[in-house]
Amino acid sequence: MAGNSFGTIFKLTTFGESHGEAIGGIIDGCPAGLSLDLEAIQAEMQRRKPGQSSIVTQRKEEDEVQLLSGIFEGKTTGTPIGFVIQNTNQKSRDYSHIKDTYRPSHADFTYDKKYGIRDYRGGGRSSARETACRVVAGAIAKQLLKNVTITAYVSAVGELQLTKPYSELDFSQIEKNPVRTADVDMAVQMEEYIKQIRKEGDTIGGTISCVIENMPVGLGEPVFGKLHAEMGKAMLSINAVKGFEYGSGFTGTRLKGSQHNDIFNEDGSTQTNFSGGVQGGISNGEDFYFNVAFKPVATIMQNQQTINSDGESVEMSGKGRHDPCVVPRAVPIVEAMAALVLADFWLLNKLSKI
Amino acid sequence: MAGNSFGTIFKLTTFGESHGEAIGGIIDGCPAGLSLDLEAIQAEMQRRKPGQSSIVTQRKEEDEVQLLSGIFEGKTTGTPIGFVIQNTNQKSRDYSHIKDTYRPSHADFTYDKKYGIRDYRGGGRSSARETACRVVAGAIAKQLLKNVTITAYVSAVGELQLTKPYSELDFSQIEKNPVRTADVDMAVQMEEYIKQIRKEGDTIGGTISCVIENMPVGLGEPVFGKLHAEMGKAMLSINAVKGFEYGSGFTGTRLKGSQHNDIFNEDGSTQTNFSGGVQGGISNGEDFYFNVAFKPVATIMQNQQTINSDGESVEMSGKGRHDPCVVPRAVPIVEAMAALVLADFWLLNKLSKI
Amino acid sequence: MAGNSFGTIFKLTTFGESHGEAIGGIIDGCPAGLSLDLEAIQAEMQRRKPGQSSIVTQRKEEDEVQLLSGIFEGKTTGTPIGFVIQNTNQKSRDYSHIKDTYRPSHADFTYDKKYGIRDYRGGGRSSARETACRVVAGAIAKQLLKNVTITAYVSAVGELQLTKPYSELDFSQIEKNPVRTADVDMAVQMEEYIKQIRKEGDTIGGTISCVIENMPVGLGEPVFGKLHAEMGKAMLSINAVKGFEYGSGFTGTRLKGSQHNDIFNEDGSTQTNFSGGVQGGISNGEDFYFNVAFKPVATIMQNQQTINSDGESVEMSGKGRHDPCVVPRAVPIVEAMAALVLADFWLLNKLSKI
Amino acid sequence: MAGNSFGTIFKLTTFGESHGEAIGGIIDGCPAGLSLDLEAIQAEMQRRKPGQSSIVTQRKEEDEVQLLSGIFEGKTTGTPIGFVIQNTNQKSRDYSHIKDTYRPSHADFTYDKKYGIRDYRGGGRSSARETACRVVAGAIAKQLLKNVTITAYVSAVGELQLTKPYSELDFSQIEKNPVRTADVDMAVQMEEYIKQIRKEGDTIGGTISCVIENMPVGLGEPVFGKLHAEMGKAMLSINAVKGFEYGSGFTGTRLKGSQHNDIFNEDGSTQTNFSGGVQGGISNGEDFYFNVAFKPVATIMQNQQTINSDGESVEMSGKGRHDPCVVPRAVPIVEAMAALVLADFWLLNKLSKI
Repeated sequence: MAGNSFGTIFKLTTFGESHGEAIGGIIDGCPAGLSLDLEAIQAEMQRRKPGQSSIVTQRKEEDEVQLLSGIFEGKTTGTPIGFVIQNTNQKSRDYSHIKDTYRPSHADFTYDKKYGIRDYRGGGRSSARETACRVVAGAIAKQLLKNVTITAYVSAVGELQLTKPYSELDFSQIEKNPVRTADVDMAVQMEEYIKQIRKEGDTIGGTISCVIENMPVGLGEPVFGKLHAEMGKAMLSINAVKGFEYGSGFTGTRLKGSQHNDIFNEDGSTQTNFSGGVQGGISNGEDFYFNVAFKPVATIMQNQQTINSDGESVEMSGKGRHDPCVVPRAVPIVEAMAALVLADFWLLNKLSKI
Repeated sequence: MAGNSFGTIFKLTTFGESHGEAIGGIIDGCPAGLSLDLEAIQAEMQRRKPGQSSIVTQRKEEDEVQLLSGIFEGKTTGTPIGFVIQNTNQKSRDYSHIKDTYRPSHADFTYDKKYGIRDYRGGGRSSARETACRVVAGAIAKQLLKNVTITAYVSAVGELQLTKPYSELDFSQIEKNPVRTADVDMAVQMEEYIKQIRKEGDTIGGTISCVIENMPVGLGEPVFGKLHAEMGKAMLSINAVKGFEYGSGFTGTRLKGSQHNDIFNEDGSTQTNFSGGVQGGISNGEDFYFNVAFKPVATIMQNQQTINSDGESVEMSGKGRHDPCVVPRAVPIVEAMAALVLADFWLLNKLSKI
Repeated sequence: MAGNSFGTIFKLTTFGESHGEAIGGIIDGCPAGLSLDLEAIQAEMQRRKPGQSSIVTQRKEEDEVQLLSGIFEGKTTGTPIGFVIQNTNQKSRDYSHIKDTYRPSHADFTYDKKYGIRDYRGGGRSSARETACRVVAGAIAKQLLKNVTITAYVSAVGELQLTKPYSELDFSQIEKNPVRTADVDMAVQMEEYIKQIRKEGDTIGGTISCVIENMPVGLGEPVFGKLHAEMGKAMLSINAVKGFEYGSGFTGTRLKGSQHNDIFNEDGSTQTNFSGGVQGGISNGEDFYFNVAFKPVATIMQNQQTINSDGESVEMSGKGRHDPCVVPRAVPIVEAMAALVLADFWLLNKLSKI
Repeated sequence: MAGNSFGTIFKLTTFGESHGEAIGGIIDGCPAGLSLDLEAIQAEMQRRKPGQSSIVTQRKEEDEVQLLSGIFEGKTTGTPIGFVIQNTNQKSRDYSHIKDTYRPSHADFTYDKKYGIRDYRGGGRSSARETACRVVAGAIAKQLLKNVTITAYVSAVGELQLTKPYSELDFSQIEKNPVRTADVDMAVQMEEYIKQIRKEGDTIGGTISCVIENMPVGLGEPVFGKLHAEMGKAMLSINAVKGFEYGSGFTGTRLKGSQHNDIFNEDGSTQTNFSGGVQGGISNGEDFYFNVAFKPVATIMQNQQTINSDGESVEMSGKGRHDPCVVPRAVPIVEAMAALVLADFWLLNKLSKI
């Protein structure tokens, strides 16, 4: 209701500010009997955490997740899985410089207007730190969906875009380069570019593409609960996301029906897949693929003019250790949210017929 | 749950197949005391209905909405508003040609797989006919939001795109041309192009842009309930939609933070609006604007190879009277869904602080 | 949210005032493939409708339900089932005598204070007429639960109470007497008593008991979603209900644990059933039985002192044709709500383990 | 959905097993700007915790709540309030004696059947330990409802019942006696009786009554969301509860309408209050009062015959330190759940009219 829950059956509710005591969440509705690989959960946390490479923020956050309930002798019990991640590294910082200042294109102004009060330390609830909780839940959802393959990768950093269709990319490269892109040459270029941006004290946007293979048929609900609508919401709820398109996306708007229609093979598969694996909001078994647009991070290491809460003009200088480009670290977040959407629809679809 | 409801406080639930007895819905959570302009509701229905101009489908559907409850002496009473729209024109048609055939890029195949049964007459539940119910509810939501201005218009038909920023367009033109675009010259070109496409028995995609002015500050909820995430879901739930972007959107991914950040004026407004009126998922009072991508309609007036439910290859020929381009008629639907999202968040925001 | 929906998966949303155009509802989440016996639905409507016998109101309401969607060739399609029941008999009545008057122990005062406006004709939304929609949905839920037997009966009218345990009653008698009780002798006494009450222009309360046999094991969810908690809510939501108890109920509060504990047989059944078929909120397969308390109907055929909306004291005389005792007609409503609760939990329970 | 959340706007979701690492919860939807009295929260925890007196269980549980988020400089921020209560005292216990044994009238059997796995240590999720989380959230809800007075007290222990109407009781006595009853003489008798029951190794049921004074008018929603229906669900969701009645309750079923109707005074108050402060599911401003029935605790200190998970008959002996009568410690839980219901409806009611 108030925005901190996601999903209907497999449902995640999260809490926590970036500089409070801890962040955490509750996963309700995970079926009993799932053998959990706890290391796999922590491994996803490692993919998201700061300080993994020279092109992401050098903040230290251990991001160790403590699972507090809902698991017994290695298996889920059907009861809610509560978890907590301590905020270990951020307590003593000085935030007086942003206490009364609205950082441009951050949520300081809007939270203040909406709530009349805000935890100004490091962005509080609006910080991307909360995405750590999404990764925990997504890692469990992935284990529930064990036959489904969810692969996200960076498909653009600024103007540097992968132009090949995903079927011609080498997904095995993704975790081998710090940018998490699926093309060796482009990985080098993108890395160089991000380093240059960082030197400028600036940031740069990018896109992440995600491909879901071995999709079950029948996921998604009619009308308002379409698979891609919920997936779009999931992606748009990630910090810094500005757009979502699936299948032919915005490019498809320039095609004719005779070009765009996916002709069936006799086995029910299709010869093309402009539909992106979804027809009428329900999966047809083909790959479900989509693109997610991320704006450049708003925190830059340059002086900016802004205002304070009294409406006075002030200058603020960039401080702290921030990501020059958010997309490499957002890859596991995109996968996590994709897994949450699919797990929920997969369960819901078990009830579609008697 | 099963996908036929939208909203949390101001909540629409709909029912109905394109060729059943009737379609309809229930709006729950509309506050009491709202004086309803019933003609304004019907006027929105007229904007959506088929047969309005030479470039849309020539089907006749009167689409008269009967409001059955929740209104007394011209005002809402706080109880649910039930409504029904009879399906007057479609009963006697012959659908045997699609009974066992899966039309390419339609939902026939996926509904059949998901439910094991489907109402094959004219698309059934997956038909865009259900959007008439959205328009009813949206028209009421608009009246609730009386100071907010929601304007949608066609911004592209195939390759023909409006390139000017919306502030340079003339919104007063939109309802004066059958394409519902906001540029007089482009309206003529688009209309010509759609006519040509129809002659070819083909269809073409397009985009709709929507601008919301006089936005209240504070709409949207943290984390998963971000204003633009719910708006994205709303748009992606409309038939044929393939993508959604707001503010700088996909273009913004190529910008640097120093270019993209919206610098505040002393009154809290911003000098630029790459944010699209939303920061941290919450409205900041600037215009909230977004683009919606529509694929070309799947029903074409050409022969296509496809399969039947036995997995046999069959040829099907296009029949009936369909839209060569869906975007002109989708304009009021985009506005309706936008109104539903805003009404819901506007109510919810009344509870954000004590 | 605003109170007009019930259920999570198998979900009913209703609309309608007693004297508006029509009442109706939408059932979302009914699985596809259920062969519907439409006559059985209408038969349940007949059990609820006024004018069935000399001890209930003599109002004429045909209560014919029109099913508008979600059913194709006799089977549910998985899409929402919309339905409407016209209000045929009530249009021309004169309600000026209650327009500004708050009837004692009715909802006139509270609706007026809550909403600032109310449809005063015959109780509007607060009228028990809305229970007709519950009966429609319950009749479909019953068909989904085909192996479960739900039997409700009148167990008390005023001081006249059935004292035998339900296992000693003859359920085959219930529909054979106008009171719908399960004891032939008591049926005669209760009928006589109700007739006498009616002659006095008065009304009388009573209780309904409900027994659910062939209960599946495992229905109900932990903590807040306990089977009996949701059943209690379902029953308490019926007009005029003042209390709910299941299993040993209020009587069980006077027992010791050593008396009250249900000792297991080796097959998992229990020797006694003080638990009422529910342990820890989850069904154990034993009979689930409960009692529901109904107050006397507030509309009496006697003069009463009351106030109008200006806070002035006025006298009102009873008018119209009302039930002297509500329990005979409430029997199918209790069953319907029980069926809704069970159908919902039965579906939900399919997701409890992998 | 899966049962671990309560409320719609002011929403509590909980997690945790009695013998896991910790229990806890998330309160979403608490408005920003509420100054929280943290000591008052802990004081409610003290009222619920074991070991307070000689008539309750002598287990030691410190039940210190850690509030992890959503509070800044002493005020709520509108973001979710996450909290954790460590399970400090229970780690090393030996539960092998109940590992494969189904305790009579406990949830062991039903959880096992539903989930195929259960955390058998001390009841796991079905233990009343989870009610500590309800008390935390209820204590915050109470602070939100600062002008409303919620008073619960023990009204019966076994056959020992308070017979006076609540208006004649002395509420100031409640916290002065270990039974938490509102009558000095009865307090002594009840205490003696509970001690005797404990000596017998047995347990006894009882009832709690709750009176809510200074009720706002207009709380509750139509049809399914009636105030007393949600309150009934709230109470029935508490461990060991078997029944709920409000206002005249089951007694009211024996009255005539002419006796039961509450006649209005000119100021809108009523001369009697058989309605229990609720008409048509919506509060009328009079006291809202109700009774809650608790069965005797199932864990007794006597040998009982039962079965194990292989369906073999086994004997089990009572072990551990359990409450001989649950009602004294359940008083703050009843109040907490009442506060949750009221806070939620109080917020929701702000949206009832424009």
